[in-house]
Amino acid sequence: MSKEITSRSADYSQWYNDLILKSELADYSAVRGCMIIKPYGYSLWENMQAALDKMFKDSGHVNAYFPLFVPKSLFEAEEANAEGFAKECAVVTHYRLKADVNNKGKLIVDPEAKLEEELIVRPTSEAIIWSTYKNWIQSYRDLPILINQWANVVRWEMRTRLFLRTTEFLWQEGHTAHATKEEALFESKQMLEVYADFAENFMAVPVIKGIKTPNERFAGAEDTYCIETLMQDGKALQAGTSHFLGQNFAKAFDVKFTDKSNTLDYVWATSWGVSTRLIGALVMAHSDDDGLILPPKIAPIQVVIIPVYKNDEQKNLIAQKVNAIIKELKYLNIKVKYDDNDNLRPGWKFAQYEMKGVPLRLTIGARDLEKNVIEIARRDTKEKSSVDLNNVVKTVVDLLEGIQLNMFNRAKQFRDEHITNANTWEDFINLLDNKTGFVSAHWDGTAETEEKIKELSKATIRCIPFDAVKENGECILTGKPSNKRVLFARAY
Amino acid sequence: MSKEITSRSADYSQWYNDLILKSELADYSAVRGCMIIKPYGYSLWENMQAALDKMFKDSGHVNAYFPLFVPKSLFEAEEANAEGFAKECAVVTHYRLKADVNNKGKLIVDPEAKLEEELIVRPTSEAIIWSTYKNWIQSYRDLPILINQWANVVRWEMRTRLFLRTTEFLWQEGHTAHATKEEALFESKQMLEVYADFAENFMAVPVIKGIKTPNERFAGAEDTYCIETLMQDGKALQAGTSHFLGQNFAKAFDVKFTDKSNTLDYVWATSWGVSTRLIGALVMAHSDDDGLILPPKIAPIQVVIIPVYKNDEQKNLIAQKVNAIIKELKYLNIKVKYDDNDNLRPGWKFAQYEMKGVPLRLTIGARDLEKNVIEIARRDTKEKSSVDLNNVVKTVVDLLEGIQLNMFNRAKQFRDEHITNANTWEDFINLLDNKTGFVSAHWDGTAETEEKIKELSKATIRCIPFDAVKENGECILTGKPSNKRVLFARAY
Repeated sequence: MSKEITSRSADYSQWYNDLILKSELADYSAVRGCMIIKPYGYSLWENMQAALDKMFKDSGHVNAYFPLFVPKSLFEAEEANAEGFAKECAVVTHYRLKADVNNKGKLIVDPEAKLEEELIVRPTSEAIIWSTYKNWIQSYRDLPILINQWANVVRWEMRTRLFLRTTEFLWQEGHTAHATKEEALFESKQMLEVYADFAENFMAVPVIKGIKTPNERFAGAEDTYCIETLMQDGKALQAGTSHFLGQNFAKAFDVKFTDKSNTLDYVWATSWGVSTRLIGALVMAHSDDDGLILPPKIAPIQVVIIPVYKNDEQKNLIAQKVNAIIKELKYLNIKVKYDDNDNLRPGWKFAQYEMKGVPLRLTIGARDLEKNVIEIARRDTKEKSSVDLNNVVKTVVDLLEGIQLNMFNRAKQFRDEHITNANTWEDFINLLDNKTGFVSAHWDGTAETEEKIKELSKATIRCIPFDAVKENGECILTGKPSNKRVLFARAY
Repeated sequence: MSKEITSRSADYSQWYNDLILKSELADYSAVRGCMIIKPYGYSLWENMQAALDKMFKDSGHVNAYFPLFVPKSLFEAEEANAEGFAKECAVVTHYRLKADVNNKGKLIVDPEAKLEEELIVRPTSEAIIWSTYKNWIQSYRDLPILINQWANVVRWEMRTRLFLRTTEFLWQEGHTAHATKEEALFESKQMLEVYADFAENFMAVPVIKGIKTPNERFAGAEDTYCIETLMQDGKALQAGTSHFLGQNFAKAFDVKFTDKSNTLDYVWATSWGVSTRLIGALVMAHSDDDGLILPPKIAPIQVVIIPVYKNDEQKNLIAQKVNAIIKELKYLNIKVKYDDNDNLRPGWKFAQYEMKGVPLRLTIGARDLEKNVIEIARRDTKEKSSVDLNNVVKTVVDLLEGIQLNMFNRAKQFRDEHITNANTWEDFINLLDNKTGFVSAHWDGTAETEEKIKELSKATIRCIPFDAVKENGECILTGKPSNKRVLFARAY
């Protein structure tokens, strides 16, 4: 594997694309804006899914599956939601192809197979799900409904980026129904905590939890909670959102229930989702010019062992020694790979696993065997050490924990160093242009000012942090009074 | 839960639909031909997925994800495949909706957002995948590629049935690429064995392994291997297929590789898939007029424990006793549910878990507690026994194994009793009409005769069994010579 990826300093954006391709996470496809998630990338996604799925189930949720298509009449029922997604909808209009009589072997869309009602390929599933919940909910006894769905969705994006913004992407979407506003609010905040927990403790990516401004809300929501992360180039990335939908969808689909006192009321709703976009965040938060750096908890390969030998005798001796270690590591559920492929040189393998971000690389040669040691190299710090073979399992376990923690701390330090207060417009622009990262500033609370700031600075309000403290100040743009700072950034 | 499902003898087809709905496996949706897989059904699918996924990985396969959409020009490249699926294709023609100026709050398809090239919603993914493999394969070193994908696909079916035939369905599709014909043939047969193993040892559904006639082959395949199962109404159901694709797709997409001797050749291919249709097979192979009967190995709930009490004191005493048992069962990875819901009567719960096919129901009341026993009821035979609380865990483990085996044996006996030889056309029709099941008969080997038999009898050749013995005979319809029997049946 040649190491020819662009450096971050030369072109961050190109570095990202090169890295995704070279590390074999994904590939471009023949379909505009759609990508192929390659086996290594999909294995990473499976690990992320497994961890999230367990968290969802532990918090009382169950999985189900709803149709890919949404009839137009259902799609448009919740008007704010429909309006928000209308410009990004792939639309199925026909259900049959036929032979092209003018072009042998080719097919054309059969004009006689036009659908009476067009079908929208789901950009999100509130409409199809709430049209179903109507049939499932009569009484408070039918509530809450706590359903999650793992699915593909399609949003026709004009500018796409691998993982970060693709026409089709994989995600999970939770859709819950509740008897009270309080319960729905609790649910939407709880799921944001689940996302924050996952991002910080599995992905090793620190987050800021907060609430979106009305401008940045999910179309159809009363409130959108979000986790915001910071990439190494100082740009922010929204990593997950949880929406309190109020009674908007219940009203659009006429979903009512009788409560304990026999009163009829509309049902309260939430929805929440994270997607394969998280892989983009993971890559940009941690990786370096030599490749990915993956956190041990979700790495497809946690430990790679590479034997260095000159002949079959040496190879066999090493294998004998190493097999016992592999067995022990596997017993501890550590994902270990032994790469004794004869066709590739050790140096090539080193570079390859570095590119793929494997947290620990163990190398053992004939001389190590004599000394009863093995060399352990950390991917995160590139530190190497020679470890006695009798201590290797314990050392590996400790190092994997240490790497997970170090990656989080390193990302958190970078993030914390990139949250800066601005009190004047000049400072504000200067920080965005030169220091980058989050800029904490006062804002007068109007959508108009928010739009104007975005237009002038290309920065958006990422969120109003949950932990924002009351502080009187003046709007960075208009000078009007404000009672707390919000977080601005240029963002993905 | 009321037990009001149609009996099998009254109307098998209605019984099936009633059962799917009442047991909460699935529900109809607002989208023509598409269904909703409800949490209980999805949990069953997750268990089936987990078992299959492990078998795929154990046999060297990895998962990946390819786009939902196939550009028409790629779709039509392999002409046999394209022709086979052309009539069932959902087609995306536009990528945007806009406000309907004549109808406030409504949306219309934006005529200005017409795609230059239509996108087909994948009915199967050979085309998109082989157009990608072209970029991934240059040399024998790049082979084999052993990729599987878990995905949704869409086939516009005119007549749909819950699980058995739906417009959108969930499935897995393996797509492998090989350097030699032998290797590809081995792969396609190996995966058929995996499917047979899964059907028999997890679903407890016996299968006949065989090869399809050219008429019944997958469009674009050189050979299609299949597993055929028998439902309780005597109709056959194809449960899984594995295709040897020869070099057809490699030729259509120009996928060549240089072999070890530096010769350029087309790559050999296989594909193989099973879908949510398996759930339909599972239901129809085992269930009865009281509900589902699920095999323990994939049942979402393996054991339900229902306490019967008159007051809180009794309830608490029972809970204390039962908690230790639950803990032990969980430790053994047995999926146990304790249902102490106060709002439902025990009789209602009994009927509910019977409907849901839970393999074992344990009931314990105050008097049982005094005697230190618990009542265990098997779902498959409805046998009940009183078991000492000290032996309950061991008994449960043994019974779950016993039920799995009994279900398979029962289904196998029924299946074996329903494979009958026919030597005259009269016998043939008589068997299909009255005894039902598979009819083993001679066929002259022509597509013409096969079509004629289908037309006259509504029976198709399900397969030429792998274990068919050489036997000279005369075609059931034409009297022409034949050298082995094939299996006919009316089928789903």
